[in-house]
Amino acid sequence: MSHVLAMPTCTMFLADLGAEVIKIEPARGEDMRIYAPFINDTHGKTSSSIFLRFNRNKKSMVLDLRQEKGKEILRDLIVKSDVIVENFRPGTMKKMGFDWEALQKINPSIIYAAITGFGHDTLPEYSKRAAYDLVAQAYSGIMSVTGPVGGPSCRVGVSIGDMLAGHQAAIGILAALQYRTRTGRGQYLDCSMVDALFSILLAPVELYTMAGKIAGPVGSGSDILTPFQAFETKDSAVVITVANDPLWVKLCSILQREDLAGDPRFESNTKRTRNKAELIPMLEAEMKKKTTNQWCHLFEDAGIPYSPINTAKDICEDPHIRYRDMLVEIDQPTAGRCKTVGSSIRLSETPGEIYSPAPLLGEHSEEVLRDILGYTPQQVDSLRQQGVTNAEVQ
Amino acid sequence: MSHVLAMPTCTMFLADLGAEVIKIEPARGEDMRIYAPFINDTHGKTSSSIFLRFNRNKKSMVLDLRQEKGKEILRDLIVKSDVIVENFRPGTMKKMGFDWEALQKINPSIIYAAITGFGHDTLPEYSKRAAYDLVAQAYSGIMSVTGPVGGPSCRVGVSIGDMLAGHQAAIGILAALQYRTRTGRGQYLDCSMVDALFSILLAPVELYTMAGKIAGPVGSGSDILTPFQAFETKDSAVVITVANDPLWVKLCSILQREDLAGDPRFESNTKRTRNKAELIPMLEAEMKKKTTNQWCHLFEDAGIPYSPINTAKDICEDPHIRYRDMLVEIDQPTAGRCKTVGSSIRLSETPGEIYSPAPLLGEHSEEVLRDILGYTPQQVDSLRQQGVTNAEVQ
Repeated sequence: MSHVLAMPTCTMFLADLGAEVIKIEPARGEDMRIYAPFINDTHGKTSSSIFLRFNRNKKSMVLDLRQEKGKEILRDLIVKSDVIVENFRPGTMKKMGFDWEALQKINPSIIYAAITGFGHDTLPEYSKRAAYDLVAQAYSGIMSVTGPVGGPSCRVGVSIGDMLAGHQAAIGILAALQYRTRTGRGQYLDCSMVDALFSILLAPVELYTMAGKIAGPVGSGSDILTPFQAFETKDSAVVITVANDPLWVKLCSILQREDLAGDPRFESNTKRTRNKAELIPMLEAEMKKKTTNQWCHLFEDAGIPYSPINTAKDICEDPHIRYRDMLVEIDQPTAGRCKTVGSSIRLSETPGEIYSPAPLLGEHSEEVLRDILGYTPQQVDSLRQQGVTNAEVQ
Repeated sequence: MSHVLAMPTCTMFLADLGAEVIKIEPARGEDMRIYAPFINDTHGKTSSSIFLRFNRNKKSMVLDLRQEKGKEILRDLIVKSDVIVENFRPGTMKKMGFDWEALQKINPSIIYAAITGFGHDTLPEYSKRAAYDLVAQAYSGIMSVTGPVGGPSCRVGVSIGDMLAGHQAAIGILAALQYRTRTGRGQYLDCSMVDALFSILLAPVELYTMAGKIAGPVGSGSDILTPFQAFETKDSAVVITVANDPLWVKLCSILQREDLAGDPRFESNTKRTRNKAELIPMLEAEMKKKTTNQWCHLFEDAGIPYSPINTAKDICEDPHIRYRDMLVEIDQPTAGRCKTVGSSIRLSETPGEIYSPAPLLGEHSEEVLRDILGYTPQQVDSLRQQGVTNAEVQ
């Protein structure tokens, strides 16, 4: 019972790795079905390219949970399931009669995972708060360290709050399955987007708790290594990471600035970091003299870790990404052939993979009712007429 | 056999959730032991606050893998282990005689997980490349969408490439344990930091593959919702997320700009987004008239999702973070009492938790040799004298 991004990220991992994931949707479809961009300009309920990416391999079942019969079907599914997940606002499951207490009674070995902005179990003024990804990024402290040095805080350019919570939910669910294998007992996993992001807030936490220092935006670089950042080139930009003194000497040679290598102000990382304000403008001037491509070849040969700042175009056309099947083509019903992002869980025996496209709305309602719950064709028809499930596949 | 950040993130999750994690270190200790900031200003091998955070609950064993006896002990440990992990450069395990082929012969049910910049199995020119987090962020496309609109690309202010790969490794390992429970067979997991980051590059991938558009840095906001971004206030900054038209009307009322609510240029999200260049400067001017705290109270009352852009100080002192035990105090041998970040995997029966501090270097060498591998005290002494393991705990 997941929608948009946080929990669908979690169930994408589980489905890619072979779990049978049944997506329970209201008759209008979940919200992400109508998120841009659309495949082949078709604004249908199954042509949102983001929806397709995060819902491949899943089944879709329409269920009206406002009707008693819809709730009964959900209860029967919970009896037959290993895991139930949702990312509604706190309180929604209770209102429907499916809070943790109720779920345990229906199936004592069920694993129940929820993702919310602040978590279910927190101070009352927090648990009610609506939290979009942007809110979680700002609240958690992640935004305060992202952006140009001295400049405005920026959000991480992807919805990392949603997706990181989705990763952590998958970890929690898989750990709970281990525990269930041993004990037969289910568990309740209460994920918070804010907590997930706070858990990756690195040195700023320790800088504050140990030394009372408040970190600001890091720009493109590092506070402790120099030069370790992005530089503009003649045509775009490149990052270099000079983590030790021999690499520094090599860099000076490539820049044809051997004078800097011998300069006592810059002879160690500590001194380069201390005298950054003098050093960086000189390096900036040198780096503008060649194109990114020219620099990359020179850094490659010298063994200086580097990267161009790839755009979506660059990375989508990258030979490594292609080789690793991180961008694959699939045939999507109604929307047609399209490219989507593959699985990065590269296991040798059971790799994450795309074995079926994202479902049309209600595509598997009949299959689930018939094959999992044992309804007859006549009973399915009756459920359709009552609007408990969908009459047509959209 | 993990060091610094990527794989230690993975094993932190596993250890927090109850796995017995034995950290195999060279005699000098792994690199992260000497990363700043330090607890209580003690620059010892167990006072790096980042090392402590990511290595709580683990055991440390010193093993000289250049010696044949060291390799024999590692082989014996692999026989008794469920999982072996490392984040060396590609080729290192093979050189030591522990590549996947060798590992399978030692223990056919072993699960082997590796994290590298580009992965083991990729085009030869990639697999050799050194990849710091900054390189992976730039390469994957994440940096190209992070930073001020129209401005320079910034890195995500935390080492998201390392840590996200660590999350995905944990997911892969836990899935592989499921498979092993059923089949008895091990697996090989080949994680790449670049792939992990590419897997969360959201709409920019689809915008390019569907429409040939290249996304740039997003600033603090959204391309499709308006206003949905950060604003400067009288004293700091705040984010607001106005995702629908009723919220827009409420916002106008709070700003005492009912005229904007009635303005046909701004009556729908589509129009507000199209006429953003006219709208945002007006909102910016209004938002500077009150403090962040004043705005937050008004947004709270009106039900507009918002957040201050919390600094490390703000979030470390936050009641929600305290309530959820996301910042806890532990007693660290030699370094003393300190605050560290708790577990965000909030399971009801087996929550992630800190049950022991990070290990001193070689603290558990004797315990592992004796209790797991059955060495006698005399044999342990002999290994110490040969320098196969540590003579003293540091």
